[in-house]
Amino acid sequence: MYEVYVATQFEAAHRLVGDFGPATRTHGHTYRMEVILRRESLGDDGTLYDIGLLRAAVEDLASSLHYRDLDEIPGLSGTNTTAEAVAYYCWERLAPPLRDQDLDALIVRIWESPQVYAAREDSLT
Amino acid sequence: MYEVYVATQFEAAHRLVGDFGPATRTHGHTYRMEVILRRESLGDDGTLYDIGLLRAAVEDLASSLHYRDLDEIPGLSGTNTTAEAVAYYCWERLAPPLRDQDLDALIVRIWESPQVYAAREDSLT
Amino acid sequence: MYEVYVATQFEAAHRLVGDFGPATRTHGHTYRMEVILRRESLGDDGTLYDIGLLRAAVEDLASSLHYRDLDEIPGLSGTNTTAEAVAYYCWERLAPPLRDQDLDALIVRIWESPQVYAAREDSLT
Repeated sequence: MYEVYVATQFEAAHRLVGDFGPATRTHGHTYRMEVILRRESLGDDGTLYDIGLLRAAVEDLASSLHYRDLDEIPGLSGTNTTAEAVAYYCWERLAPPLRDQDLDALIVRIWESPQVYAAREDSLT
Repeated sequence: MYEVYVATQFEAAHRLVGDFGPATRTHGHTYRMEVILRRESLGDDGTLYDIGLLRAAVEDLASSLHYRDLDEIPGLSGTNTTAEAVAYYCWERLAPPLRDQDLDALIVRIWESPQVYAAREDSLT
Repeated sequence: MYEVYVATQFEAAHRLVGDFGPATRTHGHTYRMEVILRRESLGDDGTLYDIGLLRAAVEDLASSLHYRDLDEIPGLSGTNTTAEAVAYYCWERLAPPLRDQDLDALIVRIWESPQVYAAREDSLT
């Protein structure tokens, strides 16, 4: 089994709804987004997937969230913008062009700080 | 599959028994403890588990080891305080209140330095 | 399930062949190599595997690549020296002495930068 990984970051505001103490106040994070692709074997050119292409897709997604209030982003507004929900959202945006490419799984990790992350891992097949 | 992760650190002394060279002298580390929970799906509030609660439990455990000699901690004294053994010990302390909460697995990683860790992963079901 | 992890780094040059843009120019990276062993249970001395021994093997391998052009290393020359290929190469060099030691799996992660890695995971049994 092989993996490739790329990482980027974005700065965004959000607040939680519910019994989450100070996290219910509008605040923000320097989010770090880590994206991992898994595949059983490598292609003829020695790659699992073109890391440059993956990076471009990940940077585009991060740009769309950068300096935004996550609670106003279509697809996130109306949900509780926990790190888990942001991981779900980013997974859904990255997955479609990665399907039908012989890839096994996609993992998206959303770090709110160097001490906290949430991640979603799901099959691409 | 989803994950949440929290991290903290503690400074402690220890020494190994056996054929481990300089590690048999009393020394110490700035340990980093990483704790990961895994669960198949999210709850209605968009969380896998309340990260604030998890953090509090992890910080309490770290505090109980901070500025201590691990070879004198009940539950660790009498065993070889390898990073693996510390991961086992911390896993056992964190797991009980996490059972019966629909969580799938708990992982505890104990870093002795940025170059070395040991981890234990086990099912919570 | 338990894991132990060690990390080191080496500085090397390489270039890719194919449709990889600026990566086809000779360039280099401060590679970070992370090596993980997995095993179901611990031995009687409280270790999964002697981390000192693992570190020595990993450092030897890193030294053999340090300040080299990867495209001239026997076993890598003639292939496309992607991070995936370097992970494959390093896995093959580390695995032989680790077999028949009750270990379950070996993972080698090759970071080209803090933003990009490729990894290979395979069974040692």
